[in-house]
Amino acid sequence: MSRAIGYRGTTTPGEVERFELARRDLRPDDVEVRISHCGVCHTDLHALGGPASGRGGVPLVPGHEFVGEVVAVGPDVTRFAVGDPVAVGNIVDSCGTCGMCVAGQENMCEEFPTLTYGGTDRVDGTPTLGGWSSSYVVREDFAYHRPAGLDPAAVAPLMCAGVTVWEPLRVWGAGPGVRVGVVGLGGLGHLAVKFAVALGAEVTVFTRTADKVDDARALGAHHVVVSTDAAAMEAIGLGLDLVVDCAPTTHDLGPYLRTLALDGTLVVVGDLGESRFQGMDLVRARRRIAVSGSAGRTSTQEMLDFCGEHGLVADVEVLPSAEVGTALARLARGDVRYRFSLDLGDLSPTLAMTGQ
Amino acid sequence: MSRAIGYRGTTTPGEVERFELARRDLRPDDVEVRISHCGVCHTDLHALGGPASGRGGVPLVPGHEFVGEVVAVGPDVTRFAVGDPVAVGNIVDSCGTCGMCVAGQENMCEEFPTLTYGGTDRVDGTPTLGGWSSSYVVREDFAYHRPAGLDPAAVAPLMCAGVTVWEPLRVWGAGPGVRVGVVGLGGLGHLAVKFAVALGAEVTVFTRTADKVDDARALGAHHVVVSTDAAAMEAIGLGLDLVVDCAPTTHDLGPYLRTLALDGTLVVVGDLGESRFQGMDLVRARRRIAVSGSAGRTSTQEMLDFCGEHGLVADVEVLPSAEVGTALARLARGDVRYRFSLDLGDLSPTLAMTGQ
Repeated sequence: MSRAIGYRGTTTPGEVERFELARRDLRPDDVEVRISHCGVCHTDLHALGGPASGRGGVPLVPGHEFVGEVVAVGPDVTRFAVGDPVAVGNIVDSCGTCGMCVAGQENMCEEFPTLTYGGTDRVDGTPTLGGWSSSYVVREDFAYHRPAGLDPAAVAPLMCAGVTVWEPLRVWGAGPGVRVGVVGLGGLGHLAVKFAVALGAEVTVFTRTADKVDDARALGAHHVVVSTDAAAMEAIGLGLDLVVDCAPTTHDLGPYLRTLALDGTLVVVGDLGESRFQGMDLVRARRRIAVSGSAGRTSTQEMLDFCGEHGLVADVEVLPSAEVGTALARLARGDVRYRFSLDLGDLSPTLAMTGQ
Repeated sequence: MSRAIGYRGTTTPGEVERFELARRDLRPDDVEVRISHCGVCHTDLHALGGPASGRGGVPLVPGHEFVGEVVAVGPDVTRFAVGDPVAVGNIVDSCGTCGMCVAGQENMCEEFPTLTYGGTDRVDGTPTLGGWSSSYVVREDFAYHRPAGLDPAAVAPLMCAGVTVWEPLRVWGAGPGVRVGVVGLGGLGHLAVKFAVALGAEVTVFTRTADKVDDARALGAHHVVVSTDAAAMEAIGLGLDLVVDCAPTTHDLGPYLRTLALDGTLVVVGDLGESRFQGMDLVRARRRIAVSGSAGRTSTQEMLDFCGEHGLVADVEVLPSAEVGTALARLARGDVRYRFSLDLGDLSPTLAMTGQ
């Protein structure tokens, strides 16, 4: 067991406090990561607002998009060495044998993947504690090589926000000649725009607020439509092949479905619970609805490699880890462009002082 | 103008009466069809039950899946000659120039296709009157060559029920190695089973009633699941690549979505209005929902040719046209295996007696 410093939820919804936690001794295929940065995701807000926070004495340590450096490796590890730049996303294990795992979709493991936090370790049954901490121990198969040339603080959000939009863009073929719409310019949406542009697609951004029009263009969008402008929405016609809908709450899918061309697909990103659609909006132009969330190992590494080649990272506001409360409060009101990245490197000196 | 005998809705919902109607003089690209048989579709029931029936003095003449013989051709007609066996489906014209028409999806014409009945002729603005009649005049582009070796009474339902299930099977790739589910064994479903089997797919039928299990097997289904049997539904696992959902009313899509394998598609056939889905049912296994209805000209002819090659027709119960009321009443309570085909050839002697 090694000691680490982290942040856990308290009995007050939305609040975290610093505490000391233990990381397991390395198993043969484990790597230990010293964490430098971890993103702040809407999922963290939800988790901290729910009853799981602090329940039953199990600490809730958020954080599932983090980066750092390998500081120790188990004897069977072959893909990493001490000193390697590394990144970890929102799952840290899966059964490895079901149809989904064999297909490289560990995120859809039929026995359910092990979540980076709030999950249960498949070997010893202990709860998983997330990346808002100074270190993490993970099977090497669920750690990823991080392109060394990119700002680590800005790479962290790629591991959840990034792969979550990368996956639908790749699955539904975003590329040259493909007209892609992105709904919502937030943590996910801004990366969807960057990726789609870098993949060669023609990109239209839908935003509810006119003050993001310039931002969308700065990110590379070719067209920007304020979604409350009915005439502008109508003018798109049957113009888009793929819409990646990153709006964070349940909403009427109709206006976006109606922008889709023949065989076009609307992908809702993230599970927003129950959604509704009108049959006429799908039957016309033979459209499809899908929901996408997360990605498997192969796709995740592919995304990181693509970002390394194209110099792509998230737009982040880096905060010292002690300001995590500020990050949560501002994220709750949508006050971030576009993702907070917590500097967790500042925990290591603390750890030293506590006597590691 | 030529005279014809047909059946029109009355002010009593669900009731029809015989009457004499006029068919337009042939335009240069028109063919005149002497109708031998026309199917009875749920759409006819809906139309006759609604306020359009008899409204404003415009006769409602149902019938949009009919067959017959060409009895006259306009001077510019090149694809048909007098005596040709012919079939007509649920659309009889479209703009011909929009993106959808150019793509061969006249059924999705952006200016809306002209329906075989209840539509408005694009040239003279008159209402279209359907195929429950002794003849029809139609642009040759919307008439189809009917394989002569097939029973015409059993070909008629192919023109609506048939193409409606043919289209999703073809669009979503039913064929060898593809596991296809068919929900509901009615007019559409029984043809979906025949087509999917003939295309080489492995076919699972979902039926609510155990008494259709033997029927499903007789149609060629490889597996039959009674959908109220939760354990049997569960046992399918992530087993199907494509589910063609022919259930005639809005229902919970969840149980069928959960049978889909990675990248599987659930196609709801026909516009059932508003449907709902749970995001988790789609995000898992990266599933898609689509809605399909009707087909374009190319696909319609392809379906007929396929049926000719494989000796495929609908299972029909043929009734004299005078028993159309019986057909409607029995269809309303689901008492038909699997489609009524009205013998409209019996109207021609009547027409002769009225002095044509």
